[in-house]
Amino acid sequence: MDQILKEIQALALPLIGQGKVADYIPALAKVSAKQFGIAIYSNKGELFTIGDATTNFSIQSISKVFSLTLSMKHFGAGMWDKVGREPSGQPFNSLVQLEYEAGVPRNPFINAGALVVSDMNQSRFVSPHYAMKTFIRRLSGNQEVQSDHKVANSEYEFRSRNAAMAYLMKSFDNFDNDVEEVLRSYFSNCAIRMSCVDLAKAFSFLANKGYCRHSDEQVLTEQETKQVNALMATSGLYDEAGNFAYRVGLPGKSGVGGGIVAIVPDQFSVCVWSPELNKAGNSLAGMAALETLSQKIGWSVF
Amino acid sequence: MDQILKEIQALALPLIGQGKVADYIPALAKVSAKQFGIAIYSNKGELFTIGDATTNFSIQSISKVFSLTLSMKHFGAGMWDKVGREPSGQPFNSLVQLEYEAGVPRNPFINAGALVVSDMNQSRFVSPHYAMKTFIRRLSGNQEVQSDHKVANSEYEFRSRNAAMAYLMKSFDNFDNDVEEVLRSYFSNCAIRMSCVDLAKAFSFLANKGYCRHSDEQVLTEQETKQVNALMATSGLYDEAGNFAYRVGLPGKSGVGGGIVAIVPDQFSVCVWSPELNKAGNSLAGMAALETLSQKIGWSVF
Amino acid sequence: MDQILKEIQALALPLIGQGKVADYIPALAKVSAKQFGIAIYSNKGELFTIGDATTNFSIQSISKVFSLTLSMKHFGAGMWDKVGREPSGQPFNSLVQLEYEAGVPRNPFINAGALVVSDMNQSRFVSPHYAMKTFIRRLSGNQEVQSDHKVANSEYEFRSRNAAMAYLMKSFDNFDNDVEEVLRSYFSNCAIRMSCVDLAKAFSFLANKGYCRHSDEQVLTEQETKQVNALMATSGLYDEAGNFAYRVGLPGKSGVGGGIVAIVPDQFSVCVWSPELNKAGNSLAGMAALETLSQKIGWSVF
Amino acid sequence: MDQILKEIQALALPLIGQGKVADYIPALAKVSAKQFGIAIYSNKGELFTIGDATTNFSIQSISKVFSLTLSMKHFGAGMWDKVGREPSGQPFNSLVQLEYEAGVPRNPFINAGALVVSDMNQSRFVSPHYAMKTFIRRLSGNQEVQSDHKVANSEYEFRSRNAAMAYLMKSFDNFDNDVEEVLRSYFSNCAIRMSCVDLAKAFSFLANKGYCRHSDEQVLTEQETKQVNALMATSGLYDEAGNFAYRVGLPGKSGVGGGIVAIVPDQFSVCVWSPELNKAGNSLAGMAALETLSQKIGWSVF
Repeated sequence: MDQILKEIQALALPLIGQGKVADYIPALAKVSAKQFGIAIYSNKGELFTIGDATTNFSIQSISKVFSLTLSMKHFGAGMWDKVGREPSGQPFNSLVQLEYEAGVPRNPFINAGALVVSDMNQSRFVSPHYAMKTFIRRLSGNQEVQSDHKVANSEYEFRSRNAAMAYLMKSFDNFDNDVEEVLRSYFSNCAIRMSCVDLAKAFSFLANKGYCRHSDEQVLTEQETKQVNALMATSGLYDEAGNFAYRVGLPGKSGVGGGIVAIVPDQFSVCVWSPELNKAGNSLAGMAALETLSQKIGWSVF
Repeated sequence: MDQILKEIQALALPLIGQGKVADYIPALAKVSAKQFGIAIYSNKGELFTIGDATTNFSIQSISKVFSLTLSMKHFGAGMWDKVGREPSGQPFNSLVQLEYEAGVPRNPFINAGALVVSDMNQSRFVSPHYAMKTFIRRLSGNQEVQSDHKVANSEYEFRSRNAAMAYLMKSFDNFDNDVEEVLRSYFSNCAIRMSCVDLAKAFSFLANKGYCRHSDEQVLTEQETKQVNALMATSGLYDEAGNFAYRVGLPGKSGVGGGIVAIVPDQFSVCVWSPELNKAGNSLAGMAALETLSQKIGWSVF
Repeated sequence: MDQILKEIQALALPLIGQGKVADYIPALAKVSAKQFGIAIYSNKGELFTIGDATTNFSIQSISKVFSLTLSMKHFGAGMWDKVGREPSGQPFNSLVQLEYEAGVPRNPFINAGALVVSDMNQSRFVSPHYAMKTFIRRLSGNQEVQSDHKVANSEYEFRSRNAAMAYLMKSFDNFDNDVEEVLRSYFSNCAIRMSCVDLAKAFSFLANKGYCRHSDEQVLTEQETKQVNALMATSGLYDEAGNFAYRVGLPGKSGVGGGIVAIVPDQFSVCVWSPELNKAGNSLAGMAALETLSQKIGWSVF
Repeated sequence: MDQILKEIQALALPLIGQGKVADYIPALAKVSAKQFGIAIYSNKGELFTIGDATTNFSIQSISKVFSLTLSMKHFGAGMWDKVGREPSGQPFNSLVQLEYEAGVPRNPFINAGALVVSDMNQSRFVSPHYAMKTFIRRLSGNQEVQSDHKVANSEYEFRSRNAAMAYLMKSFDNFDNDVEEVLRSYFSNCAIRMSCVDLAKAFSFLANKGYCRHSDEQVLTEQETKQVNALMATSGLYDEAGNFAYRVGLPGKSGVGGGIVAIVPDQFSVCVWSPELNKAGNSLAGMAALETLSQKIGWSVF
């Protein structure tokens, strides 16, 4: 495995310079582009890393998987009245579809869907961001996981598009709490900082039938675990989910911080990271690394 | 396996009566609703069946997988300039998205995408329908496979919406041949009649790394096989692909004739059939049967 | 004229009962349906009335003409960078078009456009609602004109859809001030209460080349006056502007309070009122009354 | 008037070179750009001209007014079940709106609406194009009016987008005849060649309460005349109708051949022509000429 990781790194590093670091908020734009890391965590507890695998970065949309997991634990199948399970077929923050489909977002991984999930968690927890942070610390085994307040505040300042979506859903009676409060929680979760190692470990329960070995906890049932993986496989990479299935063939979730997490069911959880993004908003070098990794080891589930 | 199939049949039969046989053309509306069959074909050549597994039915959109396979063999990766690989996120025959995305359909399994694939095959073969029929006979090992001319003519008569899509793509320079000719070939392919057994055998190469054991033929490379499966997983069930992944967890393709084919990679190809459809246009009892089958045997790839 | 008004009233009264009083906020739903009034004010200062012509009602979207007039006075042609002059071709509060056209609303009479105009006025006046009230009092010659705080607060409480539009425009950098503040001003203006007589007098400058005879004031230039009338003619009646031009043939503006104002250039300003609305959101009896009035007197500008 | 026309010409000629001659079909692209003409025809029968007022050009979408007039004569108000009377708010050939509004086009002046009107005329006349030509010859008093077969054939060859619209409406059961036949008639009507003088005379009935003085014929009733003018005022200039009302203030209809016809009710019919188009597809110099003309003489109906 270490040899393969070295080869992957050699192939991926030259790609840095061809993408673009997310710059829609100043706090993210300052991240140095020349970083690249991989962490692979096996169901037996082995950890393989290369590059900047222990450097923290903003997990951004990867947090949507944690939010979904929390809401599935607490609301079960009832949550699917408020958010769908179908790929969106549109750029990830489009309001058009939301309007035509009466305020019910297509899936929990587009922004509108994640806002509805955050709204549900807001109804359930006194402090949903605190609940989330505690949950993630347990899943990753890292008690030092923190949210970056500067990033969260900057996202809040530039909240207009997300606010528009939340108010639109509210106008369709599909949003229960105060919009501003939910946005605060949502952005605090997006601004959580973790490393490739943290994320590979935190996602390991999805490779292991719902069981997290280092916290010795059955996070979700085996069937719920398959369901989360299925949702990631069809909707986890913004408007590039089909391409990811075609090229990588694994359930995955990306964030504009440059991280991508993927699940090899019954075997591994993987996190790659490199800050520069492709046009679809996914890590450019990360996509290439995962594709090669998947093909070299024959990981595709298809 | 035979015991499981009996249980599945017992669960699925009571659902007949809750769906609706496709009636957009008279020739399909006459099919008797009370039919149900399953065929499972293993990579070792074993065949398991129950119910009306040898009754022929109209394969309709399932033919889109054969068309795609033919075009992948002849055009390779170049074909992806003309058709995308992303889920569509809209009802399966919507023109809206096609217009906003400049005449390039989202994937080869929505009608617009299948028309582009048919247009490509029309450029390659003197008689694309004859090429298709020969190909399917070889894949299924059944030399008697025929197209139903009455159904094909009826589809042609009610071609307005498909014609609108083809002309729209032509207006964007993404359609090369005469619209009427391509529609004729397309409808002839949709009108092919096969049984569950035929389809399970014909799709077996997708479960077997591209190799078809009964025709002793490498139909696609191993990687291309994974790619076709990935496309089915993200886009194979109209606007219910996400739900199918969530509930069944297998690559699959459905048709309005009531058939659904699914692939268990490295193990089985499966075909279920029952003519009544749910609201999304997929076999109602077929979906339930596949869901139970997948859960009982633990087939989900996720 | 008095005889004609009696005939119109006789024709219009039986229509009451066939429409529906606006009920999207409780404060408006309580208005008694059985009310009907007309006021006609001539450029010579003559006033003709019938029915409930001096009863106050919520002017709602009719206020958009006053807002536009204020912003034209202060921003001139520069304002057209932020809002268009084309009919919208969609229900009056659709976000779809706004998104496709990058946050620039089609015209100042759809909600999104009126919000942008309110945002401009917010930049110009310390208290835009006070400026508006003063302006309307002068134009109508009625110093008692007031806004109904209960209605304004109720509109604010149910602000979700308008808030979504404002935030969407802000995300496209086409909205400068705090969304909540602008919404407060906007709803206060909508909640202004006036009678048919007040409105006929307040709109008289649009029939009189921009001159308001009772305040002895040139409100707009002659050309600006024609421009406001042109905008009302193409976009003044939500998604029924074409039908209004076809049936009535006059520039006009309606509100969900049941009022409709129309301009007979160089001759009269007219206000009809009856609270029940048709499906397009315009006063049902009011439309019929204006249509008959226009045809009987030959008022159509076409 | 002659003096004013000279001034207008002096202002308009320098604009030639800033627009773009229609080039979507080769036959139109060859027209020399440096042409400009105006013809004004009064209700008293006076004719004022300047520039290339007797040069024939392709009337294109201006023919839609003749088609509409023919169908109003033969179908009366019944025709409005198949086509609406509202501005479209979209580029003139968009399919999106057509799909969302179930195949009923917004008005008779967008392409989809004109196709439905052509379909109605196809149901009524043995040879709709012959009926149209005869009608136009009578209205213009010019027995030499002809259609350019080369242009008509070229339009037919590049018919894809119009064919897509026609088939889409057929799929919604709002199109009765064979698509190809109706397209042939439609393009033959668009390809009719007339001069500014011909068009000013042919449109004179719309300025004269429906009466055509040179053929001594009541073409439409007075009310129908106002209705056609109202439709032109709200929908006659593609996606620039609002701007035309704002700047010119007259009912008008343009064509991609560079002609624009306008009506000064009870006084004049006007035709301006210059082949170069602005971004909205309307004659650039023609728009400027009409705007100045209208302002200098005070023609705006508003």
